[in-house]
Amino acid sequence: MPKMTRRGHFATIRIDIKAAILECVGTTFFLLFGLGGIQAATAGTLASSSESAPSQIEHVLYISTSMGLSLLVSAWLFFRITGGLFNPNVTLALMLVGVVPPVRFVLMCIAQLLGAIIASAILCGLTPGPLASNTFLQSDINAAQGVFIEMFATAALVTAVLMLAAEKHQATPFAPIGIGLTLFACHLFAVFYTGAAMNTARAFGPAVVTGFTYPHHWVYWLGPFLGSLLASGFYILLKYMHYQDLNP
Amino acid sequence: MPKMTRRGHFATIRIDIKAAILECVGTTFFLLFGLGGIQAATAGTLASSSESAPSQIEHVLYISTSMGLSLLVSAWLFFRITGGLFNPNVTLALMLVGVVPPVRFVLMCIAQLLGAIIASAILCGLTPGPLASNTFLQSDINAAQGVFIEMFATAALVTAVLMLAAEKHQATPFAPIGIGLTLFACHLFAVFYTGAAMNTARAFGPAVVTGFTYPHHWVYWLGPFLGSLLASGFYILLKYMHYQDLNP
Amino acid sequence: MPKMTRRGHFATIRIDIKAAILECVGTTFFLLFGLGGIQAATAGTLASSSESAPSQIEHVLYISTSMGLSLLVSAWLFFRITGGLFNPNVTLALMLVGVVPPVRFVLMCIAQLLGAIIASAILCGLTPGPLASNTFLQSDINAAQGVFIEMFATAALVTAVLMLAAEKHQATPFAPIGIGLTLFACHLFAVFYTGAAMNTARAFGPAVVTGFTYPHHWVYWLGPFLGSLLASGFYILLKYMHYQDLNP
Amino acid sequence: MPKMTRRGHFATIRIDIKAAILECVGTTFFLLFGLGGIQAATAGTLASSSESAPSQIEHVLYISTSMGLSLLVSAWLFFRITGGLFNPNVTLALMLVGVVPPVRFVLMCIAQLLGAIIASAILCGLTPGPLASNTFLQSDINAAQGVFIEMFATAALVTAVLMLAAEKHQATPFAPIGIGLTLFACHLFAVFYTGAAMNTARAFGPAVVTGFTYPHHWVYWLGPFLGSLLASGFYILLKYMHYQDLNP
Ligand SMILES: [Ca+2]
Ligand SMILES: [Ca+2]
Ligand SMILES: [Ca+2]
Ligand SMILES: [Ca+2]
Repeated sequence: MPKMTRRGHFATIRIDIKAAILECVGTTFFLLFGLGGIQAATAGTLASSSESAPSQIEHVLYISTSMGLSLLVSAWLFFRITGGLFNPNVTLALMLVGVVPPVRFVLMCIAQLLGAIIASAILCGLTPGPLASNTFLQSDINAAQGVFIEMFATAALVTAVLMLAAEKHQATPFAPIGIGLTLFACHLFAVFYTGAAMNTARAFGPAVVTGFTYPHHWVYWLGPFLGSLLASGFYILLKYMHYQDLNP
Repeated sequence: MPKMTRRGHFATIRIDIKAAILECVGTTFFLLFGLGGIQAATAGTLASSSESAPSQIEHVLYISTSMGLSLLVSAWLFFRITGGLFNPNVTLALMLVGVVPPVRFVLMCIAQLLGAIIASAILCGLTPGPLASNTFLQSDINAAQGVFIEMFATAALVTAVLMLAAEKHQATPFAPIGIGLTLFACHLFAVFYTGAAMNTARAFGPAVVTGFTYPHHWVYWLGPFLGSLLASGFYILLKYMHYQDLNP
Repeated sequence: MPKMTRRGHFATIRIDIKAAILECVGTTFFLLFGLGGIQAATAGTLASSSESAPSQIEHVLYISTSMGLSLLVSAWLFFRITGGLFNPNVTLALMLVGVVPPVRFVLMCIAQLLGAIIASAILCGLTPGPLASNTFLQSDINAAQGVFIEMFATAALVTAVLMLAAEKHQATPFAPIGIGLTLFACHLFAVFYTGAAMNTARAFGPAVVTGFTYPHHWVYWLGPFLGSLLASGFYILLKYMHYQDLNP
Repeated sequence: MPKMTRRGHFATIRIDIKAAILECVGTTFFLLFGLGGIQAATAGTLASSSESAPSQIEHVLYISTSMGLSLLVSAWLFFRITGGLFNPNVTLALMLVGVVPPVRFVLMCIAQLLGAIIASAILCGLTPGPLASNTFLQSDINAAQGVFIEMFATAALVTAVLMLAAEKHQATPFAPIGIGLTLFACHLFAVFYTGAAMNTARAFGPAVVTGFTYPHHWVYWLGPFLGSLLASGFYILLKYMHYQDLNP
């Protein structure tokens, strides 16, 4: 392949911009309903009267279902439009393995961060009470534990995208189901400890709208970034090992 | 295409009537079990004795599961019969994008509203206590917020129908799964605030049977109507942009 | 087709007996785990100490998930063996629409009733406390309401089997998913009122093992029987109307 | 087929070792998130303050969802890499029916036991409080009941792998969904009584890291082993009976 000229990088710029605009719409969709469920379960339950207080387990199960199903359906709806990533860390991994070119990567990341801010702002306007969807570390978790939990959970999500959607096979049209359920399963572990961002845009949107009120916001940039590198490296290793020949 | 004569509009009237009758049966099916779950979780729990009071979170999770799975399965069963829409706002969008002709649209809407009334009436007869499946605005939500929440949630549902069922691709036979899960995910956000109608028939049926006891019933006509327009406009834009060429 | 001789009816008797034995194993599988979840959630929770009492909503959600997923997976595993019906009312419908011949119908029903008894007996031996999986009418439900709730819920389940498994189309290999989720959705409505048998064998097994301790056991024979007739009639009507031509 | 020489057994040793390393990674993935959910729901809830104590039902539902979805997604991601077994009892059954050769069986078992230990160790380091994911018998269950519950639950899981993944048909690419949901359904029964290991590696990993603090650890070796034999025997019988000819 010849060395790419500047012309080459920007040859598809019009298509890339269109895709980025639609990815922004999709990210808004995903997080409006995903974070909306968190908002409802957290701020909305203050009004309960004849009902008992929720337990932490049912609160976290609700949040996990909300985020998991919201990604499942929004990724499915946008799967044939923009791919339905809604996540800069997933987009980074796709650039590293050669599926997404650099210019599109930059535009998609901007679109995803912007979509997360828009979703948070709409949510703030539509619902009473302050925005309740920030991610933050539980008091008994230190920053290093937070980084590693985010790293492992993001690596799982990125691996799901690489093995189910980037790899082409019979179940590829159903990849959004597997990707959404991966987010669901990882939430059931990580929400208790870090809030389970697994996606820098998802952490960034509410933080911008509420003015970065929680410490350790950097954890949600470093952890998912490392997760993206870990999963990309694992995928490159799998390809190098010709993984499809290992199973008789 | 030549200008349509009155004859042309009514050429398939016998088939349209048959389809409308079956759509009425399907809507009854969907709402008998969907609203039935709400009835059970709301009126049925008054009798609890040795058990604790439910929290609002588990109440809403139950309602969302009930409505989401009920649409998933009833849409799947009726998918190859009438399409399994059960929703005038979805039907409107399918008319606007040219999939459903005008005469069938009118008949289907009548069938769906009628089916919702029948389901509510059956449910009222089968269960003790008053009907508990009306949609209404929570006290801290104003009508404008209610309209927009219903608009966004309905737009998500309509987009699911357009991208998964109206568009033809490998996963189309499984569209009812994605459509039902979209209703599920949107419920997890909207039930807390508006009751998550996302479907004028679903709000209308119980309201007719109970005599329009809640204010702001118009919210469930305006909100879903705007959602239907929003999603149809987005879909027309996607087609105009040749969305299938955006993803390399 | 010529009038069938007695020879004709019994021509496949060896295959029918083998299928019935395996259907008995499958029904035991389905109900061991389905009723096992009910047993755990009902009798097992007596031992809770530092935890709060469950609410009725979470009890019913647990039961519905248990029965729904158990049917989903056991029907999927036995789908290519015996069809995975595990339900005399479903088997009756398949005989009425001509899929299952009369001799096999009789053998399958015996196998299903026997499997339900075996599952209940194993469950009784494996777990402490009395068997807690009987179906019975809630105190504020009368027998007529019970019959109709069982009729509608069974009709939904039978329609799922007819439209997803008996009809052949692209999604047919995935019919067990839709059938299991139909049982799940119907449970969310009916468990509160009748226990949601939707299957005479499922009501009969625990009743035999515990000695018919609850009144109105006949409701679980009449209701599902009527549901089977209702769904079979609807399906025959659909075929007569050439339902596949109604959707343009 | 000629008698296998020692050369024959080890002919694919390089591929077998690669597969075992990746199976170890996959088992770590599965159990990090599966056991992580248990850890969060058990140790993590000690910190709840304004919220009510969870009921045992919601605790068990959370654990079942966590383990079920974690297996579903990790098996899906590794399905085309190593098969995604993560379970020595499943691997044993695949050897007994002739799918996995003996050398690979030994390497896979070591990898799976090792992966379970690694997942438990990572989890212990990432989360506060002691590891809370050991399996143990409830006080009102005796060892014989524990062995039989583990045997039946494991037999169900192994049958899922044999009928959905080992048998080749149209739904085979979706086997991980059915296998994960089988684990989910069996958990809803067995968690209450034995902790639902259904997998010796899953019981062994946390036991090693915590120093075998619970009695009856042998139950989780004998029960799943018997379940593996039971399911393999049933599958061999099915093949002998030409099960695919039983359903007309
Ligand atoms: Ca606000
Ligand atoms: Ca509770
Ligand atoms: Ca009534
Ligand atoms: Ca620790």
